[in-house]
Amino acid sequence: MIRTGSIVRVRNLVKEQKSGSKEIGLVPTMGSLHDGHLSLIRKARRECDYVVLSIFVNPAQFSPAEDFDIYPRDLKSDLRLAHNEGVDLVFTPSVQTMYPKDYSSYVILEKITEILEGAIRPTHFRGVTTIVAKLFNIIQPDSAYFGQKDAQQLAVINTMVRELNYPIKIVRCPTVRDKRGLALSSRHQYLTPPQLKEAAGIYCALVEGVALIKSGVSDFGRIRRRIIDVLSNYGLKRIDYVSFNQWDSLLPVRKPGGKILISLAVRLGKVRLIDNIILDA
Amino acid sequence: MIRTGSIVRVRNLVKEQKSGSKEIGLVPTMGSLHDGHLSLIRKARRECDYVVLSIFVNPAQFSPAEDFDIYPRDLKSDLRLAHNEGVDLVFTPSVQTMYPKDYSSYVILEKITEILEGAIRPTHFRGVTTIVAKLFNIIQPDSAYFGQKDAQQLAVINTMVRELNYPIKIVRCPTVRDKRGLALSSRHQYLTPPQLKEAAGIYCALVEGVALIKSGVSDFGRIRRRIIDVLSNYGLKRIDYVSFNQWDSLLPVRKPGGKILISLAVRLGKVRLIDNIILDA
Repeated sequence: MIRTGSIVRVRNLVKEQKSGSKEIGLVPTMGSLHDGHLSLIRKARRECDYVVLSIFVNPAQFSPAEDFDIYPRDLKSDLRLAHNEGVDLVFTPSVQTMYPKDYSSYVILEKITEILEGAIRPTHFRGVTTIVAKLFNIIQPDSAYFGQKDAQQLAVINTMVRELNYPIKIVRCPTVRDKRGLALSSRHQYLTPPQLKEAAGIYCALVEGVALIKSGVSDFGRIRRRIIDVLSNYGLKRIDYVSFNQWDSLLPVRKPGGKILISLAVRLGKVRLIDNIILDA
Repeated sequence: MIRTGSIVRVRNLVKEQKSGSKEIGLVPTMGSLHDGHLSLIRKARRECDYVVLSIFVNPAQFSPAEDFDIYPRDLKSDLRLAHNEGVDLVFTPSVQTMYPKDYSSYVILEKITEILEGAIRPTHFRGVTTIVAKLFNIIQPDSAYFGQKDAQQLAVINTMVRELNYPIKIVRCPTVRDKRGLALSSRHQYLTPPQLKEAAGIYCALVEGVALIKSGVSDFGRIRRRIIDVLSNYGLKRIDYVSFNQWDSLLPVRKPGGKILISLAVRLGKVRLIDNIILDA
């Protein structure tokens, strides 16, 4: 496994592989790898000849009020995990490499980035689309792997790839959950054991929503109220949103039919937690 | 020479060439080709194995008040000229192909797009950078050719390529001028013979500015006034700007030294004309 922070070196290594017609897979991460990330790496490993893992805590997707400085970082552990999974190349650029002084270029998407997470974190998706576009241009992968846990991020990237004509296949990977159903997240490190117990209510609430839709309930106001009840029963009362959207346009859903994204965000201690289920209703 | 409006077909044709390690050159145009465009094509033809010409009048770089609908189009003549110059592939996508319904993704640059042309045409460069990024992603050229006549456009694209990490060489091509010195432009079709005579004052004014700098004058206020005098003598009194900027950061210049872009924009009849000289002072 090779590790480098140099764009030129990454380009040369990938070019060498491409000239041998190898399929290149990219797994973009902010490090602090958990089983969710590892499932992405394993899928890339199965499907591609050459697997590139990028580790970069991207300042552009944090607002000044957010947790960029204290976001968990553990490069040593990340490199060991990557090596064990058979990653070929780990790209670990510096902030200075990715955003030199007076940096000014951004990829923006209208509408789809203005709702849900984007309504609460106004510059977040601009940071995401910009860094992903940069990684795509540097690595030029055939496929890129993203977790469904960040469903809106996935929808935004699907839209960007389609609209800006990137010749890259975006692979959606299922959310990995712990035994209680809680979707794995690097930010769980900030939670106490009692808070983790409360957080288990998130998945229960989503499952309840799915069950209601499957049983034929079509009143989304009623389903939302039931989801909020379940969250409350677990002590989760600081709810940013519970939302029903068409997958993957994220247009509002009024009645069952097609693929529906049920997503929610709650606050617990100092952490915001998001989760979702995509339902073929 | 192959002509197609299909993104998939372009991709396949270019991929075939790339697998044979051919160097791909892209000349992006809005058609209505004149000798300025042909000089770009010739340079690409000399330097690359496979030359792609794109012809697309890009609505995103026109404001609603501008001349998108009446912008000159002459595809038959363009294709004949392209064929004569030995172009390999002409890409002529439809507006629907490039901007499908509910299109939402844009590449934006801060600061460098907010001055000069950008101050007068606020959404223009967003349209330029977006279409160029799309063409880069579709064609994935090794080199792309742009005329110096649109100097700010060139500086913006240089910045975009550097900052978004496109692995593409941007080639600056000298401005082609008629016998009076007037920089060729598709919009000259809108000018009457007396107006074309007035327009010749633009290049005289720029040359005068260069002469003053070369003779040691370092007071840019004085140089600007002299340039405006020359323009006035030719009857050009509707001046949008006369500007001195560092090339290619476009930061303001206060005193001679380094490469200086002298650029100006004037209005003549219903047309805005721009021109510039880059001076190694």
